[in-house]
Amino acid sequence: MHARRLAVLFLAALVSALAAAQAPAPAAREAPVRTLPVPDSVSPAMQKIIANPLHPRWLSEPKDANEWKALVKQAYDAVMPALPRLREALGVAVKPDTMGGVPVYVITPRSVAERNANRVLLHLHGGARVLHPGEAGTYEAILMAGLAGFHVVSVDYRMPPDHPFPAALDDAVAVYRALVAKYPPRNVAVFGASAGGSLTITTLLRARAEGLPMPGAIAPGTPTVDLTKTSDTLFTNDGVDNTLGTYDRMIRASALLYANGRDLKDPLLSPIYGDVRGFPPAILTSGTRDLYLSNTVRMHRKLRAAGVEAVLQVWEGQSHTQYIGDFNAPEVREYHEEVARFLDRHLGR
Amino acid sequence: MHARRLAVLFLAALVSALAAAQAPAPAAREAPVRTLPVPDSVSPAMQKIIANPLHPRWLSEPKDANEWKALVKQAYDAVMPALPRLREALGVAVKPDTMGGVPVYVITPRSVAERNANRVLLHLHGGARVLHPGEAGTYEAILMAGLAGFHVVSVDYRMPPDHPFPAALDDAVAVYRALVAKYPPRNVAVFGASAGGSLTITTLLRARAEGLPMPGAIAPGTPTVDLTKTSDTLFTNDGVDNTLGTYDRMIRASALLYANGRDLKDPLLSPIYGDVRGFPPAILTSGTRDLYLSNTVRMHRKLRAAGVEAVLQVWEGQSHTQYIGDFNAPEVREYHEEVARFLDRHLGR
Repeated sequence: MHARRLAVLFLAALVSALAAAQAPAPAAREAPVRTLPVPDSVSPAMQKIIANPLHPRWLSEPKDANEWKALVKQAYDAVMPALPRLREALGVAVKPDTMGGVPVYVITPRSVAERNANRVLLHLHGGARVLHPGEAGTYEAILMAGLAGFHVVSVDYRMPPDHPFPAALDDAVAVYRALVAKYPPRNVAVFGASAGGSLTITTLLRARAEGLPMPGAIAPGTPTVDLTKTSDTLFTNDGVDNTLGTYDRMIRASALLYANGRDLKDPLLSPIYGDVRGFPPAILTSGTRDLYLSNTVRMHRKLRAAGVEAVLQVWEGQSHTQYIGDFNAPEVREYHEEVARFLDRHLGR
Repeated sequence: MHARRLAVLFLAALVSALAAAQAPAPAAREAPVRTLPVPDSVSPAMQKIIANPLHPRWLSEPKDANEWKALVKQAYDAVMPALPRLREALGVAVKPDTMGGVPVYVITPRSVAERNANRVLLHLHGGARVLHPGEAGTYEAILMAGLAGFHVVSVDYRMPPDHPFPAALDDAVAVYRALVAKYPPRNVAVFGASAGGSLTITTLLRARAEGLPMPGAIAPGTPTVDLTKTSDTLFTNDGVDNTLGTYDRMIRASALLYANGRDLKDPLLSPIYGDVRGFPPAILTSGTRDLYLSNTVRMHRKLRAAGVEAVLQVWEGQSHTQYIGDFNAPEVREYHEEVARFLDRHLGR
């Protein structure tokens, strides 16, 4: 097995060298089959998450609205039972409300430090722009409120199949508008994972276009900043990431469902193609096995090139969104401590 | 092909799910064969580097001192002819000298900004602790002097097979001692790539143990902070990285050659096992295809957990050390601009 892999490597190098001698620029290369042990370089709690099998959901490709709704319900039913225990363990209260005409959940930790009393985080949940409606979208917000100690407002934005683009963005901007009317904008941060990380950035693009002020900081986690199959780790981490598995099935299908015929490179769909000059300080997060590692580092570079203070953290061995995979894992607590420190440094009081 | 890969993914998910139902914790998983196109998300100059075939050098395993020396000579002969043109293009002068009894190269850019006049960078070259003796080690230092505009002193440290551990470290610390006697320590930075990035950190560990002051900042690029096969991307990016290819051949062989019987987890060999509290600000760099991406992010997390100001940059699509792969690539210039800004912020004048 070992010898065979080495033979493949040798042959690949030889073939590439011969190809390079003949053609001006060799193109794609083949990565061999590899065995990926669960790494020793992470905590036991994170090892369990990394050892999990891929959920078959991400290999599905719903063909019509009914199939999408069945998938959404399945995910909803899987998330909901965990929430009461999570709220209790982290001492967090969740209350439905309306803000800017949009349904939201107001999430309040048991105790809020004095310096966070007049600060608020706007949360945009993940789930490929189609999963986690209603209270199911509060999972990440409960973690942030409980582990970082902030007031959080989580937006229950509309989603396809019934409400494709720009419904989600309209809702996010409406709540943002209400928040920056109520709080000094520098006291507001926006955050979210995956689709929510991308929506964090497109919300700022739209807010700016509408003349709204920028918030004090943002924390996009492994954001889907490019809905096309461009980012390199969509290829290199295909079959390596055990959260999403591959771009080629549900991820692509949900991108097309959300875009509803619009060009996937529209900056309000794929903010990597937008203009991020003047953005507030940003903390971005990914993992070495993350299918969206490239999405994350491309956005980090783009922000830096635009002169924005942007910091990057990449977690060892983690696939997509595993930095919020289990609140008992030390990595998950450390993630929230990093974000809390970053926001504390940049938000107004 | 596409259908086959998906079938494999489906089967893998199914098998994992079945295994999970039976066993307490599923272990390793298989990553399928993947075709990796050269990404569209990098510059044309970087695309050329990413499209290069793996150099067969990294698949070799020299069996004795003579075979090692032949390999060292081959690499030396490949690097040397490029240096005169590089020095000229970047307007950099290189002069051999001695410092603390150790041979060094003093590298001076044509013009040095006023604020950098009394600052100096100590450079520790890469090459798996065995390659690039003499002037061949100045490549990275020429880039840094020319593109970031600093005075650089590059250490021609002793290497195996004739001089295994701790010769290189002794030499690096001797030059560091001389530099912090001549300059205010806060005006000194230490940097290097790969083996040189690791040596940057072990030099600080030894310097501290010997009562020397810390420098103003460090810039370890894709540092080999763990000589054992522990880091997750040694597995996930095996056969993906086109600079190093795999840990299993020359990388492991050179680690054992350098360690010379010492435990590979000794912190002076693998500084990820050391105590980095009190370290100066650090900027760390890697790429999404880098075999040492995990080495880099593990070190970043370790520094952050120790309360050190440490920033991370990860470059899209790049394998090991490709951020210094071609001074014409915009990514390579941007890398040096980032490091220059970081050092400017942290070094004394």
